[in-house]
Amino acid sequence: MLGLGKKLGPPQENEMERRKETAAFWFRNLRDDICDAFEKLERDAGGYDMYTGEPGTFERKHWDREQGGGGEMSIMRGRFFEKVGVNISTVHGEFSDKFRKEIPGADKSPAFWASGISLVAHMSNPHVPAVHMNTRFIVVGDGGLEGEDSGRFWFGGGADLTPMFEDKDAASRFHEAFRICCDKHGEGYYEKYKKWCDDYFFLPHRGEPRGIGGIFYDYLSSGDWEADFAYTQDVGRTFHDIYPEIARARMDKPWTDEDREAQKIKRGRYVEFNLLFDRGTKFGLMTGGNTEAILMSMPPEAKWP
Amino acid sequence: MLGLGKKLGPPQENEMERRKETAAFWFRNLRDDICDAFEKLERDAGGYDMYTGEPGTFERKHWDREQGGGGEMSIMRGRFFEKVGVNISTVHGEFSDKFRKEIPGADKSPAFWASGISLVAHMSNPHVPAVHMNTRFIVVGDGGLEGEDSGRFWFGGGADLTPMFEDKDAASRFHEAFRICCDKHGEGYYEKYKKWCDDYFFLPHRGEPRGIGGIFYDYLSSGDWEADFAYTQDVGRTFHDIYPEIARARMDKPWTDEDREAQKIKRGRYVEFNLLFDRGTKFGLMTGGNTEAILMSMPPEAKWP
Repeated sequence: MLGLGKKLGPPQENEMERRKETAAFWFRNLRDDICDAFEKLERDAGGYDMYTGEPGTFERKHWDREQGGGGEMSIMRGRFFEKVGVNISTVHGEFSDKFRKEIPGADKSPAFWASGISLVAHMSNPHVPAVHMNTRFIVVGDGGLEGEDSGRFWFGGGADLTPMFEDKDAASRFHEAFRICCDKHGEGYYEKYKKWCDDYFFLPHRGEPRGIGGIFYDYLSSGDWEADFAYTQDVGRTFHDIYPEIARARMDKPWTDEDREAQKIKRGRYVEFNLLFDRGTKFGLMTGGNTEAILMSMPPEAKWP
Repeated sequence: MLGLGKKLGPPQENEMERRKETAAFWFRNLRDDICDAFEKLERDAGGYDMYTGEPGTFERKHWDREQGGGGEMSIMRGRFFEKVGVNISTVHGEFSDKFRKEIPGADKSPAFWASGISLVAHMSNPHVPAVHMNTRFIVVGDGGLEGEDSGRFWFGGGADLTPMFEDKDAASRFHEAFRICCDKHGEGYYEKYKKWCDDYFFLPHRGEPRGIGGIFYDYLSSGDWEADFAYTQDVGRTFHDIYPEIARARMDKPWTDEDREAQKIKRGRYVEFNLLFDRGTKFGLMTGGNTEAILMSMPPEAKWP
């Protein structure tokens, strides 16, 4: 099993800086690659009558965070991608007292550093699933430079798919892609992270899952930073390859007004999950994050008829 | 000042039962009166070209709560009232351990009884404000029959208005009506409950209020149950009179597609408030309430473009 075995001592200060830079650089590159792939899909949709008008392109907007750091939102409002937001951010500061209690390692030091990529796509065509992907690297305190009690660092993230209607083919392709990805990096990763995803993306008040799941992992710090980072990179690459494949395969499928109505109602459930339960949304709003970037995940239109 | 002065001893058991019945009966009657007034508005809208089709009528749906009690949802999907839900419920049971900590008096006993009415109206015409009204009577433990430590009881509620655009006339009429109502019942009630409303219906992540406010009160237990109940009744009556007046005065105002778009975006903020911050929503979902009834407050359509 990769990622375990080599137990490193506490990282040196410049080593932690190198890790932060490396991770942040990766998230930015992944953002660029995903935006390119999505813009290509958006252009290719012009081959079908249902997608009218010019192809959308990503608009980029930089924001600074008062307490430290900032990010870039990329948003495309297109014909195939009705609304897709891809955010990267690298922020640092101190957790509020209230929030510290919920973060491992933050009881000793309120300082944090976090970098990540977060993406939600809502599609015009109700037969094309909505999708979410997020990966992040988080350092609390000094990351453990001074020993166990001085902080922690970890990776987290995942990806999950939300078809509007039952879509066994999409589900099995998505799951299979992440199974292959996980199996390359850690024994039991797939089973554990798939279950975590199913448990997490569930609306208890509806008694229904948000979508068909995928994978969800958090607090990944196996002792081998390079291995954990490689896994996190592979989650991003897997998403980059599988989602466009699933979306493209459904691009030509026509839809009815009833399909569109069902899609808007399903999107209402998405809103409920994100505002009632999503940890990223809470984390963002509680740490004074950029509201526009955090709520970019909201669907362009939703219904509660 | 009414409502203070006569300090009653702890109520007798049958006295508390009488209060519960009296309050629940009032909430039901108020529901009937409001539904009648709203159906009349819905019929009268037929005099204007913008409101097409047959007038809506309320559909009523009873629900039972597994732990004890139940309620009735009344929902109308009409031409003037795009979607309006009026719920009454009378429930009892025990608070979950997690929730007990947040409820005064529940540390000694987890038992609760609660009855109330809750209403949210989303209007077709963007020039007619959305509105919310809720009043409730809550008894924790035995309501204090065995002394201070054995429980508490109180009234809570309020009403607030959400115009889609600046509407000084609507704001001043709404505020004035509740000022008159409050001034009849307690010195300082209006100032205190108006401020509480402004503080409560605020979206910190947007730095904006949900609407123009109104009044919000909670934990009202002055020592004179009859006075507190009379105030709660008057809040209901005031709402019953003022909202239809404001709505009717705007019924003939035509709107554009741009107005409607702005309305849907404003409704998105309403969704954000209700799912991120609203205590009634949280209370309902955390006490195993009826999801359909609780989320009846969601607007029929909302946008995050």
